[in-house]
Amino acid sequence: MQRFGQVIGLHDETWDEYCKVHEGPGVRDLLAIANIRNFSIFLQRMPDGLLYEFAYFEYVGDDFVRDMEWLNAQPRHREWLQLCDPMQRPLPGAEGWTRMRPIYFNP
Amino acid sequence: MQRFGQVIGLHDETWDEYCKVHEGPGVRDLLAIANIRNFSIFLQRMPDGLLYEFAYFEYVGDDFVRDMEWLNAQPRHREWLQLCDPMQRPLPGAEGWTRMRPIYFNP
Repeated sequence: MQRFGQVIGLHDETWDEYCKVHEGPGVRDLLAIANIRNFSIFLQRMPDGLLYEFAYFEYVGDDFVRDMEWLNAQPRHREWLQLCDPMQRPLPGAEGWTRMRPIYFNP
Repeated sequence: MQRFGQVIGLHDETWDEYCKVHEGPGVRDLLAIANIRNFSIFLQRMPDGLLYEFAYFEYVGDDFVRDMEWLNAQPRHREWLQLCDPMQRPLPGAEGWTRMRPIYFNP
């Protein structure tokens, strides 16, 4: 099992809507098929005054690249990204989520 | 089971040492007794140019306050905090870790 942490910014003017769309089932079923478990999202306004979203998830498959390609090819997942992307603000220089550096895992 | 996400700043000049001390066993055994599972730490330099540490963990007990009181009373845990605290930089207005707002959990 691999643990991942990632971060992206969120626009202030749409973060209420962002929270609201995440109350629904979203694409949880597709994430599960792609071997993703325990996807957890947290919001935080950081000292720079901007909103950020932090995600933790676990990957339990044996080919992460192949599973992400499958996920990104699913029409419902593409629709989900089209819904969420405009509400997110990648870190400067990033195109989407920024993968964070893991330093400590307590089994 | 309750999921937690929290954030704190790290001083640039000691973050190598911070990573190094986390290579050892630390207080993992005490966290386990205090019903904490899956403690995962990630580092990220944010757009404000500063280093931050993001932690995800799960609490599987039935009295979080009591378990944290027990943990904080353990001499080895106090020594661990005395080691780590000077390397951490709480967010403005915070005294230690800042609990982040959860918005989405995928079972």
